[in-house]
Amino acid sequence: MNGLVTSVNLTLPAWVEDAAYGEGLYRTDDAKMRLAVELARRNVEARTGGPFGAAIFEAATGELISAGVNRVVPLNNSTAHAEMMAFMLAQVRLGKFRLDGGVHAFVLATSAQPCAMCYGGVVWAGVRRMIVAARKEDVETHTHFDEGPMPEDWAAGLRARGIEVTLDVLRADAVEVLKEYTRLGGADY
Amino acid sequence: MNGLVTSVNLTLPAWVEDAAYGEGLYRTDDAKMRLAVELARRNVEARTGGPFGAAIFEAATGELISAGVNRVVPLNNSTAHAEMMAFMLAQVRLGKFRLDGGVHAFVLATSAQPCAMCYGGVVWAGVRRMIVAARKEDVETHTHFDEGPMPEDWAAGLRARGIEVTLDVLRADAVEVLKEYTRLGGADY
Repeated sequence: MNGLVTSVNLTLPAWVEDAAYGEGLYRTDDAKMRLAVELARRNVEARTGGPFGAAIFEAATGELISAGVNRVVPLNNSTAHAEMMAFMLAQVRLGKFRLDGGVHAFVLATSAQPCAMCYGGVVWAGVRRMIVAARKEDVETHTHFDEGPMPEDWAAGLRARGIEVTLDVLRADAVEVLKEYTRLGGADY
Repeated sequence: MNGLVTSVNLTLPAWVEDAAYGEGLYRTDDAKMRLAVELARRNVEARTGGPFGAAIFEAATGELISAGVNRVVPLNNSTAHAEMMAFMLAQVRLGKFRLDGGVHAFVLATSAQPCAMCYGGVVWAGVRRMIVAARKEDVETHTHFDEGPMPEDWAAGLRARGIEVTLDVLRADAVEVLKEYTRLGGADY
């Protein structure tokens, strides 16, 4: 036995099912982002990961498809960002490796601008639209997280691939969560 | 029950344990890359994913820490690239969310230049060095995969963060695997 590990399990905290229950359809951008920011807020309060939340919705109906929160420290997994969790869980639920491989279009709501890794991840996930709350400068002002090396005009890179980008949706609310994380002494890594 | 999925399991194919057994220490760049390319080759032959392999080694000793292959289509998971699998499995094995959070330094060998997502992933994984076989143009010439929107000088972005980059290690061998995948009619996505 050479000690190689050959499988890894990624999990959301148990409270996520409650947070996302019974809300009906998330029709507007604000409704979608309210959930993403609420996921971030509860992740900070429960100390179950970093101050970031994301969710994926069916564009036409506003149906919630998946939720994600940052799980890097609890899971010992540098890839377990909120957006990546949401992509993986949506794809498992729908049984497809790209969300756009069908008649339905999907929207990602994320409480903060994606980092360099999640930026590329957005392209492969197959979402057709991304709405963002906090900006890079908010994250870097209010926490010690950084976004990594990004292309100069990152939003243009997504738009060129047919992915619509909308910024500053409930930005102030997401900034409050970032501040709260730092106030509580959350881990920086 | 709202149908939300709250956990996802990522697995390597069963043959990986054989491929990585009994090789002792991988001291040279060529030895490290021989394993990464062999993982890619066997992944194509076994039809267990895309034509990409990666592995992480302890820098000082050449000990194999983790292996990864592309698992996007079999697992319905757009994030399951070879490098990401190797990062996650190394971190689970070592019980840390950044590989450089200790006295040991780690090297990533990858059979092809990382895509936009894995590029960011390299930064967060905590490897101190990356050796690469096939270049972006090899991937784009011999398959229909593309690398996504990358910063202009991507290698400089890693070097600026203290991550050494070495290109063209066993490049021709990795190109053969890309060609074989296309010859066998492997899925493009």
